[in-house]
Amino acid sequence: MSILITNAVILPCDAAMSVIEGGYVHVEGDALKAVGAGPAPEIAGAEIIDAGGDIVMPGMINPHCHMAMTLFRGLGEDVDDRLYRYVLPMERKFVTPEMVRAGTALAALELIEGGVTTVADMYYYETEVGRVVDRAGFRGVVGQTIADFDPPDHRTIDEGFALVEELVAEFAGHARVVPSIAPHAPYSTDIAVMNRVARWADDHPDVPVQIHLAEMDSEMEWCARNHGLRPVEVVEKAGLLRKGLICAHCLHVSESDIEKMAHARVCVAHNARSNAKAGRGIAPVETMRRAGIPVGIGTDGPMSGNTLDLFSQFAPVTMFQKLLGHSRKPMPAVEVLRMATIEGARVLGLDDRIGSLEPGKQADLVRIDVSAPRMQPIYDYYASLVFSAMPVDVRDVMVAGKWLMRGREVLTLDRKKVMRDALQVAAAFKAEMARIDAAG
Amino acid sequence: MSILITNAVILPCDAAMSVIEGGYVHVEGDALKAVGAGPAPEIAGAEIIDAGGDIVMPGMINPHCHMAMTLFRGLGEDVDDRLYRYVLPMERKFVTPEMVRAGTALAALELIEGGVTTVADMYYYETEVGRVVDRAGFRGVVGQTIADFDPPDHRTIDEGFALVEELVAEFAGHARVVPSIAPHAPYSTDIAVMNRVARWADDHPDVPVQIHLAEMDSEMEWCARNHGLRPVEVVEKAGLLRKGLICAHCLHVSESDIEKMAHARVCVAHNARSNAKAGRGIAPVETMRRAGIPVGIGTDGPMSGNTLDLFSQFAPVTMFQKLLGHSRKPMPAVEVLRMATIEGARVLGLDDRIGSLEPGKQADLVRIDVSAPRMQPIYDYYASLVFSAMPVDVRDVMVAGKWLMRGREVLTLDRKKVMRDALQVAAAFKAEMARIDAAG
Repeated sequence: MSILITNAVILPCDAAMSVIEGGYVHVEGDALKAVGAGPAPEIAGAEIIDAGGDIVMPGMINPHCHMAMTLFRGLGEDVDDRLYRYVLPMERKFVTPEMVRAGTALAALELIEGGVTTVADMYYYETEVGRVVDRAGFRGVVGQTIADFDPPDHRTIDEGFALVEELVAEFAGHARVVPSIAPHAPYSTDIAVMNRVARWADDHPDVPVQIHLAEMDSEMEWCARNHGLRPVEVVEKAGLLRKGLICAHCLHVSESDIEKMAHARVCVAHNARSNAKAGRGIAPVETMRRAGIPVGIGTDGPMSGNTLDLFSQFAPVTMFQKLLGHSRKPMPAVEVLRMATIEGARVLGLDDRIGSLEPGKQADLVRIDVSAPRMQPIYDYYASLVFSAMPVDVRDVMVAGKWLMRGREVLTLDRKKVMRDALQVAAAFKAEMARIDAAG
Repeated sequence: MSILITNAVILPCDAAMSVIEGGYVHVEGDALKAVGAGPAPEIAGAEIIDAGGDIVMPGMINPHCHMAMTLFRGLGEDVDDRLYRYVLPMERKFVTPEMVRAGTALAALELIEGGVTTVADMYYYETEVGRVVDRAGFRGVVGQTIADFDPPDHRTIDEGFALVEELVAEFAGHARVVPSIAPHAPYSTDIAVMNRVARWADDHPDVPVQIHLAEMDSEMEWCARNHGLRPVEVVEKAGLLRKGLICAHCLHVSESDIEKMAHARVCVAHNARSNAKAGRGIAPVETMRRAGIPVGIGTDGPMSGNTLDLFSQFAPVTMFQKLLGHSRKPMPAVEVLRMATIEGARVLGLDDRIGSLEPGKQADLVRIDVSAPRMQPIYDYYASLVFSAMPVDVRDVMVAGKWLMRGREVLTLDRKKVMRDALQVAAAFKAEMARIDAAG
């Protein structure tokens, strides 16, 4: 099966961050056969799609999310102790495989509608997450959480590892779902658990490791109090600061931390809106990237950052670095797009297969309509995408050569059922919130 | 003519920031007759609109914009000296009444589509701006700029005042277009000009005065060097720090500046994205509001903030104050909505007529669809609007009892002509940019 998209502004997100006006993309099966400028070649039997001047670029990559938490979106907003007041007790009470399926499906709908084609996830009952990703047709690095705070799906670390083994058994070798292990954070897995994860990872080189790192003041204090170290140093001491480790947040990283991280070849998922909404601060993204650390643009869970598309993150990502640098120059729009695509792929260790439109890579692409008044005029496609584009501008989404959305209609999910299932869980959450509030 | 909107979640943005589920709004002519909970009353001959659970709230108020600058949107993005390299020379060369009409019409389309019903504008040939606002059917406080840097429409301050008089003559007593005078900024109007504006304003108590204030480091330096004062003190010395002065930006305001501003009863237009994109900083919005200064949410011109809707500003407005306060608590969502509506109206001196849905006020309202996956579930309507809503969710827009948009179709502007006119000007801009870049 051959598809030829013509008359497009192609942003391949290759090393040069090229711009190809009047370009074409040739998809053959699940892969990209050719990407070029000028009149498209004749390809016998190909379906031809005239993009009418729309932008065609790689599907975007969200390297940090907790998809099922869509069901908590907006709950206890602006309440400083909401984690202990609402979230943790409600997770213990309500997180089941069914709830994870419902929440992840709602996230999948939003992600596809927003042009995100690959997500790294960390949550509970992660095998269920992998199944939803599989059915919805996008890509996931699905991370089973391991933590010692009595999380909803495992009472012991042994039980946590059993869930990881189950996940790996189900998805090893899957074309789009990559099983992953996710020790929660230094303060919730401590050195012994992180060291066990490091040894397990030695035996499973294809399983990416994800962790929350250097996110909170309380984490800094915990690490100082318990180990006399900074969070990055605690992870290092546990032997987990290793090539390919996906570190979410990294707000509180010193110059020496950044040197260690670069040397160990870890990667970072930056979550601008989540970090700012919690009043936590601004991660030194420019400094980390200058040190050679790949940084992708994550959304965090929808309880922290609310939306799951990357457009909502673009303006914060660049504004925050401009604020830190006290100048208009830091983090130009083109770099934001690089992070959202090929650099995000590098963060997940998938840059040999996705993240750019180059022959031989998987055909993961989005078509973006530029006709909204806010998108015009266009002097610079990257600036328009970073400062003016919104998820609604995404018209079509393809993953591995298969359309997941055409003309804004998601083809792989039953929208009505997804919404109904989600709202049913939300009704139970509302009742529980009222109970908690009544109890004082 | 009577319209009854039923089955809506009404957010009237009254003093209590009430939430009325299953509510109704009764519009009679250009005004609101009733707003209430429960089943709607029987009204003979009324057109009945079932809102199907959508949100109905006041049209939003954008208290600082340069509408015609849509034509410069994204031009020279991330270039530190773009003001002197591109903008000022191109304004001198290209700003004409025709260009102002084309740019303002493009802005009008975006504003209406985004649910903004009132805009305060500062630009050149402002009579043209007033005419576009009038025809498009929304409300404007249209400010003719006065400046001493040889702006495109007046070579002398006398000529600037003549343009103001022309504007006032055309729009005095207009139901929706309020003529305004806009001395540009302390460094570009200096004390003599600002004093002349103050005396003129004494004779024209119905004409609001707008100014850029305490926005830039270079402005701080200029005021210190030339007057040994801070910008707020320079305006005070000129006799212009007066009741109702609309001050845009106010980033660099000390505690004593804020005291002076509160005592003088000036108002502030906060432009979060514009200030951050330029790397300038974060205005102390919470401190100004605690001092009793009304603060509205502005977009600034589309060259500075790119988009003109307020949804794009909401997350930055709250995130920035949370970052300043290093906590999740500052600037809760409900306060953001207050600023976007009734407090914005207060900033423009129009809160007796617009800004909330209360009987007797003008019927300026928007209907917002809440069905997008990113909007669900809803635990708190204000949080959903601040952190998840986007302009595309605005379904219908009414100003003074007249529909400007129904089902996302703008009824008062010829969309094709607006886009065509704008792109024609943009083509000339592109050629000039290429000429400037070629010249080095």
